[in-house]
Amino acid sequence: MGSAAYAGLYSTQDILARQDVDGVTVGDALDAIRYRGSEPVGALKLGAFVEVHIEQGPLLEAESKTIGVVDRGQGVIWYDGSIVGASAHTGTTPMNHRRDALAALSELVLSVERIALGYGPRAVGTIGECRIAEPSRNVIAGDVRFTMECRSAEIEVLDEFDRRTRKSAADIAGRRQVGIELEAIWRKDPTPFDPGIVDTIEAAAARLGYSRRRITSGAVHDAFNLALVMPAGMIFVPCKDGISHNELEEVSQAHCTAGANVLLHTVLSLAGVASK
Amino acid sequence: MGSAAYAGLYSTQDILARQDVDGVTVGDALDAIRYRGSEPVGALKLGAFVEVHIEQGPLLEAESKTIGVVDRGQGVIWYDGSIVGASAHTGTTPMNHRRDALAALSELVLSVERIALGYGPRAVGTIGECRIAEPSRNVIAGDVRFTMECRSAEIEVLDEFDRRTRKSAADIAGRRQVGIELEAIWRKDPTPFDPGIVDTIEAAAARLGYSRRRITSGAVHDAFNLALVMPAGMIFVPCKDGISHNELEEVSQAHCTAGANVLLHTVLSLAGVASK
Repeated sequence: MGSAAYAGLYSTQDILARQDVDGVTVGDALDAIRYRGSEPVGALKLGAFVEVHIEQGPLLEAESKTIGVVDRGQGVIWYDGSIVGASAHTGTTPMNHRRDALAALSELVLSVERIALGYGPRAVGTIGECRIAEPSRNVIAGDVRFTMECRSAEIEVLDEFDRRTRKSAADIAGRRQVGIELEAIWRKDPTPFDPGIVDTIEAAAARLGYSRRRITSGAVHDAFNLALVMPAGMIFVPCKDGISHNELEEVSQAHCTAGANVLLHTVLSLAGVASK
Repeated sequence: MGSAAYAGLYSTQDILARQDVDGVTVGDALDAIRYRGSEPVGALKLGAFVEVHIEQGPLLEAESKTIGVVDRGQGVIWYDGSIVGASAHTGTTPMNHRRDALAALSELVLSVERIALGYGPRAVGTIGECRIAEPSRNVIAGDVRFTMECRSAEIEVLDEFDRRTRKSAADIAGRRQVGIELEAIWRKDPTPFDPGIVDTIEAAAARLGYSRRRITSGAVHDAFNLALVMPAGMIFVPCKDGISHNELEEVSQAHCTAGANVLLHTVLSLAGVASK
């Protein structure tokens, strides 16, 4: 939220008025912990922004690399979807009379997976949530809501993914006589990082003797908001089994140290005070 | 519950002690509406049991038949199932590193559907409920619970369905490196009705001039419990679009009248007092 306000994507007022599920606003929560500052957002002018983060994915660990030099972030499209078929008794409704919303969703889940797999490492696509309205073990699901997303660092792939997924949904809807709605509720185009910052990070890692590779960020980070208004870049370190947003998330002390060292040397270089 | 207690499948005490989701027992609820009788369950001896019901399926309507002469009820197996894969970030986890529990369930849903379709009208199979643990739009589903059922009037088909579904689940689990558990929590073998009762119902419908066909009951009814302890049978009438357990459930006055007339003439025949 801070980086989005700094980059002008939202106003400070809008951010402060946002509420959590209990109705507590960001402004109230900041006051409660005495973190609401007096300086206007954006008053502090920065020459560059560099962020260290765990990869949240498996690539660095799999290739035994210590440092990920992030050169870009994936674009994302988020969708809300629904499938409406017909609820009916599971015991009395012949298979060929059914309009099963869960079976239709199952086809769509596998179709999204197949489309994403076809792009190799260039895209991911996921249906992560689904909820059947009034579920029962002896009622055919008649109404299913779900969310879907696709991500790619290439805008053409993102657009093609959107077209192919919609076509697949229309095919399934026609064949199974169900209604499928797909609404794109959020889109962020792929973000390249500043080449000068990326090169500086790579040179710092090399000078420090860390193994490294260029990498695309799969997740969205503050640096992508700030990249809209200043040169920005990111440094990734490996995490165990690529696990993140999970109590099993783990990163070694040695990798944290390496990330901090690369950050320090990158910032010194950008400030023009790095030792040779 | 009444027919199950009458047939001795459960004791009266067990039935009276069952609770709804608010903890109200059947005994308390019967007392509240003054429906708890004083006569012991089973004291009333009956020579036969004949039940009228809407079909709850689409066959009679589709074939423009007024009366369904039910000759048997399907067997049923109910399952509780779970799939455990790995939760992970949707943006950072490459497609070929995933252990997506919802994608595995999707394959199983379509496999159950395909197996059932292969038996034509001789079987139905359904996954009607699924619930993702801690769902989120940017987390790959790591843990999904579901229910499944299969039904057939032929015990061999029921057993084969069980074997083939378990094999399919094992294939999916192996290929996707997820754990799939399938627990059969209830099984009822197919129930044939008494041939004498079935013939009597058919003769009554013929004498009254109603179009008719033999039919299998897809749902479970009181008559199947009572068939364990006396000759029993059922009469079906058509319902609109086969819809049941739904506010759209509808049956015409004419079809209700026809069902009641066949019931009356069947009972008079069984009592030996029908006019010729």
